[in-house]
Amino acid sequence: MRLPQLTEARVPLTESIDAVDEFGQRRSIHIPAERDLTVYVDKRELVTLMTLGARPEWLTLGYLLNQRLIASVDEIESITVDWDVNAVSVKTREGIDRIEERTAKRVVTTGCGQGSVFGGLMDDLDRITLPQGVLRQSQVYAIVDAIRVKESTYKSAGSVHACALFRGTELALFVEDVGRHNAVDTIAGWLALQTDDVPRATGDTLDKVFYTTGRLTSEMVIKSAQMGVAAVISRSGITQMGLQVARRVGLCAVGRATNKHFLCYANPQRLVLDAVPPERVA
Amino acid sequence: MRLPQLTEARVPLTESIDAVDEFGQRRSIHIPAERDLTVYVDKRELVTLMTLGARPEWLTLGYLLNQRLIASVDEIESITVDWDVNAVSVKTREGIDRIEERTAKRVVTTGCGQGSVFGGLMDDLDRITLPQGVLRQSQVYAIVDAIRVKESTYKSAGSVHACALFRGTELALFVEDVGRHNAVDTIAGWLALQTDDVPRATGDTLDKVFYTTGRLTSEMVIKSAQMGVAAVISRSGITQMGLQVARRVGLCAVGRATNKHFLCYANPQRLVLDAVPPERVA
Repeated sequence: MRLPQLTEARVPLTESIDAVDEFGQRRSIHIPAERDLTVYVDKRELVTLMTLGARPEWLTLGYLLNQRLIASVDEIESITVDWDVNAVSVKTREGIDRIEERTAKRVVTTGCGQGSVFGGLMDDLDRITLPQGVLRQSQVYAIVDAIRVKESTYKSAGSVHACALFRGTELALFVEDVGRHNAVDTIAGWLALQTDDVPRATGDTLDKVFYTTGRLTSEMVIKSAQMGVAAVISRSGITQMGLQVARRVGLCAVGRATNKHFLCYANPQRLVLDAVPPERVA
Repeated sequence: MRLPQLTEARVPLTESIDAVDEFGQRRSIHIPAERDLTVYVDKRELVTLMTLGARPEWLTLGYLLNQRLIASVDEIESITVDWDVNAVSVKTREGIDRIEERTAKRVVTTGCGQGSVFGGLMDDLDRITLPQGVLRQSQVYAIVDAIRVKESTYKSAGSVHACALFRGTELALFVEDVGRHNAVDTIAGWLALQTDDVPRATGDTLDKVFYTTGRLTSEMVIKSAQMGVAAVISRSGITQMGLQVARRVGLCAVGRATNKHFLCYANPQRLVLDAVPPERVA
């Protein structure tokens, strides 16, 4: 694997502003930063993303992968972010085949709105073979607990979505963004760069588990599957198409995960109940 | 004003599915429906929206308005939804000028991810003149209370966003969708069809107030302003660009509105504190 050259552009993630509360008192609060980042591929303008800006290089890489404009990180020579001009310049090794054509068809997906995946959202689904293995209830609880104690922009400023990738029960990467598709794309970009892919789970326990604060929409489930992740956990619920996709690819989808509660929406045969709570709580 | 002919296509908004809980018990739950709706304008495919499907005709109209592909409802002759083929056919009276060119530039905005507004998101901002008037604290409380008691898909199935338009303190329209941009577009479409635009607020109180469960992103603020709405209330917070836009257009932006609490982020001089709570609550 040839790794691309990446900048490490950093910007503040929150901004302090004044707001007025219900008593008419002026209060200083933090809000998440939000900035536009225009992606250029081989000097051709592709898209403008609105992002918190935590990890713009990984975001860009993950975006290209998840839009299936590139098949592998090998195709990228460099990713250069310049916040002075809010631009990221991607240099490919050999160009992207038929880029005009492939970015022409628009499928506007749910997300929390009119998201975007360039054409053929479901096209590659049946080519995906997810890893074998089970999700353990104890693993679900450990993951929910790890997220609970995580210090985050959300805690200081709110209004962001968080995603995380777990290896076994170990938090590998935690990403927040104003858009949750950015968060999952950032994780996908980071994951594609990992060269020492040593499993952190033992036996038949699934090694990679994806966590999101947001809903399990079709796009989230597809992006998880594209990363080779066979189990997703969400604080929120699932949408109808998210469920359809999870069933189709055999992904274990768990939602409403808070404290000791959760609901397994898809493929419950992949869930091992090794930590059933002692008594039923209303 | 010439009103377009609209179908009144109806579909179920929730689906009952089985899930497995943390005790291994199978439970029947409801999840929101989610379906694709491909928009054809004068037989030309424009976009595919993922929607709950509550009000597809208003959604389509509001989408065209908010993308500024049409300037007025007068331009539309008919909107015909056919759920058998998940398509909506829009017939314009005189075509849409330069539609290829105007739908070519993509600005992918926040939403909860990579949303979509065809080019020039901020372009028309400075042309908007919002109505004069104030938002009253008592009005904020009445609106939050009206939302609280509303029966909704969210209450039965979760995982949807709600928007509402209030006239004074009266709930005029409540819309839920899997994507919140769909919800606000639906409200915009409905509002454009109203011919008896009689104010329901008296004196200098703002007549139209927009409510959303979602964050006040730039796109939500812009869409409110495009509807001629000078005050928005959210259960959630605001993003940096949402704040910038609200300040720029003079829109009163209130967030974190639950019970008697709220924060006014932008233009607090438009907020009249006529119902200050008796004592400070932590």
